[in-house]
Amino acid sequence: MQTAKQMKQFMEPQSVALIGISRDTGEGAFNILKHLLDYGYRGKIYPVNPSASEILGIRTYSSITAVNEDVDLAIITTPRSLVPRLVRECSQSNIQAIEIVAQGFTDANDDEGKQLQEEINDIARTSQIRILGPNTFGTANAFINFSSSFVKIRMEKKPIGVICQTGVFFVGFPELALIGKGIDLGNACDISFAEGLEYFENDPQTKVVVLHIEGMQDTKRFIDIARHTARTKPVVALKTGRSQQAAKAAQSHTGSLIGRNEVWDAALKQSGVIQASDLEEFIDLTRTFSVLPLMQEPRIGVVTISGGLGIVTIDGCQQSGLEIGQLSANTKKLLDAVSPPWLNISNPVDIWPAMMTSPSVMKPLIDGLEALLSDEHLGAVLFLGATFDEKWNTALCQLLNEAAADHQDKPLACCLWGPCGDEAIRGLGDAGKVVGFPTPERAIRALAHLNEYSQLRRIL
Amino acid sequence: MQTAKQMKQFMEPQSVALIGISRDTGEGAFNILKHLLDYGYRGKIYPVNPSASEILGIRTYSSITAVNEDVDLAIITTPRSLVPRLVRECSQSNIQAIEIVAQGFTDANDDEGKQLQEEINDIARTSQIRILGPNTFGTANAFINFSSSFVKIRMEKKPIGVICQTGVFFVGFPELALIGKGIDLGNACDISFAEGLEYFENDPQTKVVVLHIEGMQDTKRFIDIARHTARTKPVVALKTGRSQQAAKAAQSHTGSLIGRNEVWDAALKQSGVIQASDLEEFIDLTRTFSVLPLMQEPRIGVVTISGGLGIVTIDGCQQSGLEIGQLSANTKKLLDAVSPPWLNISNPVDIWPAMMTSPSVMKPLIDGLEALLSDEHLGAVLFLGATFDEKWNTALCQLLNEAAADHQDKPLACCLWGPCGDEAIRGLGDAGKVVGFPTPERAIRALAHLNEYSQLRRIL
Repeated sequence: MQTAKQMKQFMEPQSVALIGISRDTGEGAFNILKHLLDYGYRGKIYPVNPSASEILGIRTYSSITAVNEDVDLAIITTPRSLVPRLVRECSQSNIQAIEIVAQGFTDANDDEGKQLQEEINDIARTSQIRILGPNTFGTANAFINFSSSFVKIRMEKKPIGVICQTGVFFVGFPELALIGKGIDLGNACDISFAEGLEYFENDPQTKVVVLHIEGMQDTKRFIDIARHTARTKPVVALKTGRSQQAAKAAQSHTGSLIGRNEVWDAALKQSGVIQASDLEEFIDLTRTFSVLPLMQEPRIGVVTISGGLGIVTIDGCQQSGLEIGQLSANTKKLLDAVSPPWLNISNPVDIWPAMMTSPSVMKPLIDGLEALLSDEHLGAVLFLGATFDEKWNTALCQLLNEAAADHQDKPLACCLWGPCGDEAIRGLGDAGKVVGFPTPERAIRALAHLNEYSQLRRIL
Repeated sequence: MQTAKQMKQFMEPQSVALIGISRDTGEGAFNILKHLLDYGYRGKIYPVNPSASEILGIRTYSSITAVNEDVDLAIITTPRSLVPRLVRECSQSNIQAIEIVAQGFTDANDDEGKQLQEEINDIARTSQIRILGPNTFGTANAFINFSSSFVKIRMEKKPIGVICQTGVFFVGFPELALIGKGIDLGNACDISFAEGLEYFENDPQTKVVVLHIEGMQDTKRFIDIARHTARTKPVVALKTGRSQQAAKAAQSHTGSLIGRNEVWDAALKQSGVIQASDLEEFIDLTRTFSVLPLMQEPRIGVVTISGGLGIVTIDGCQQSGLEIGQLSANTKKLLDAVSPPWLNISNPVDIWPAMMTSPSVMKPLIDGLEALLSDEHLGAVLFLGATFDEKWNTALCQLLNEAAADHQDKPLACCLWGPCGDEAIRGLGDAGKVVGFPTPERAIRALAHLNEYSQLRRIL
């Protein structure tokens, strides 16, 4: 219960102290106070800087002990050598949640770093304090316009919770929602994955939980909690530091113990955590799970405007273990009615010949999608299209969003190939019904994982 | 010699006949004549349509035999049943290069298609005619503003030659140069990969040759020619139709014989052809080979602004068989001078701590890149950065392009992670010195293939 309260202080602080905040607020100053004002954070802010009386019009305090108000969260941004003393002062002021931004603790190549870490650990052990970091970008919460990251980030109120061990995931996910809520564990001397997972599991604003894992101390506890979370929310993980050389580098990045790959792979699988094979898939899966419903049947239908991409799709499904279903007799009949007589109707459905011979070029496509989305044997539908120009793209995206809206329980993914595919995919994302990819293989890998989780969910 | 002349007629026609061109030139009419005028094609155009006297102000002819001028290339766009008669008329008019756009020959599910194909083959066998298609988008050449594709395409004068078996590659490569020159083989009843490769090998406007292969008849000849081409130009291939189900689909897509995967993999490797594992890698490799020089040494240096991405990079290199080199003593010394004393200098070089402690945030990055680009033990440099906002991105891209310009013989690739990474990567592409990727793994896979070809080139 105590931890749950403290996690709210980290994630939803109503008051923050910025200990060691600089007077330099210009460009390139990485000033958290400036960022908080820019974001429009509505909580109370107590800047602490002994050599200033105000910064950006906000009254500053000479030390944290001079702040005689309740402080949910203290963010310490000084160089490492000052940190133990400041943590002690926070403890005296009865502050229970502290983020330590500085680098150079267990991640450093010297004894001083390790010794400083020990001092901090000692204070934490003998008090109620919970610590995030050191070497952290802190926390972010788009729903209250808050982030302690010293790099200014873009946030959006998306139902995605991120727990990571590197600041780079705070800069934002390309092509993605950016950050709904996030925790950077940094060196994870105290707060770790388990605490983050517990917060997100119980957070009604979070639908998908996303983990970047280098390593951790207490894997057993993590696995128990992850399994529990995965029963109600998809949990997606990228496990890095897989090679021996990488494990060594992780040791000096965040001081993490890495553990053996096979053990990790098995543990994540058992917990129902969906493991991404690389950074791109990590993003693709996050997008997929935040937009699409689960698959009721373990096979897909494919509508393609290119026979060539259809073949690429068959290869991709074979490789990802995703089944392309047989079309029902009724679906076949519907498709036969719109296609030229010489065309062999099978799944993937090549819709281009019908489009070329129909008086209305889009009509066969609409009919084809409708037929597959209504086919009860198929658990999801993949559309393979191409982008030609803006007008065509707008019509295509509208058509796809409408088809998805009519079949809200069946996942619809698409690949939009061509020179303006990026924009079209982003456009789709904004409607939040269909998930788009630039190549068939990426769409297939995402659907294969959606299928994997849909199956797992029944037995977790 | 005869074939070389005919391939020029397909690729660089100075006069084209459009047989069966429609009077309908409005939106969605897919009218080649309209496209040619829009592109600004400067060659002579002879539209053939018995029911019109002019289309878009261009005089039309009642039949191809009524055109009493030299015609380099005839493009037949009628339904399939008329094609044999029209090919015969072209033969009578002494036309030696014909593109057949219609579908429904060996790609059809009926006997009529196969019979029509036989008729065409008979004519070709007993004449000098060379045929491209049927079921083809034809040819494209950005250097003369020419394409016979009925879908209007975007072309750019890029040194990339594409040979493909599906029209979708004519719509354009996303993120890429689009089409410099292209041939869609379609069903490949006559002109196939060998003829295309010979053209591109001898074409001074083409530096990289890119193949989309479903299958072919004469693999032995292809392999001989590909090996010859790969001695002077990189040849990148995507082999599709790998699974049994896909092979069956390819049979009804272009009537191709597929062949066994292992045989293909070995044959491509022996010929020095770089094989892409999926569509995305196909594009990434095309971009890489068209921009970067070859690697002189088989190991890379990495500069990263994120320790987390550095670890992802080590994992990726391990998986792709790309070596991260040891830094020379001199390089280490240079990096030590700009970094905080507690930082352990190794490859990947984590440059962020230096950037945070330097009076000028970009200076350590410039020095770090310079140190690695000058290190003779390293064959290429990979930079892992993040994009924050437009101003930062512009500065970063300029810095990277300048570094690459100072080291023109050493490949420089980068990963730009973050919400505006796409635009930054496109910006880099325009300068044509550095190749950018959205994730470390994609950059690594591309460099691994660059290394593979750089090594192979010595023994081909």
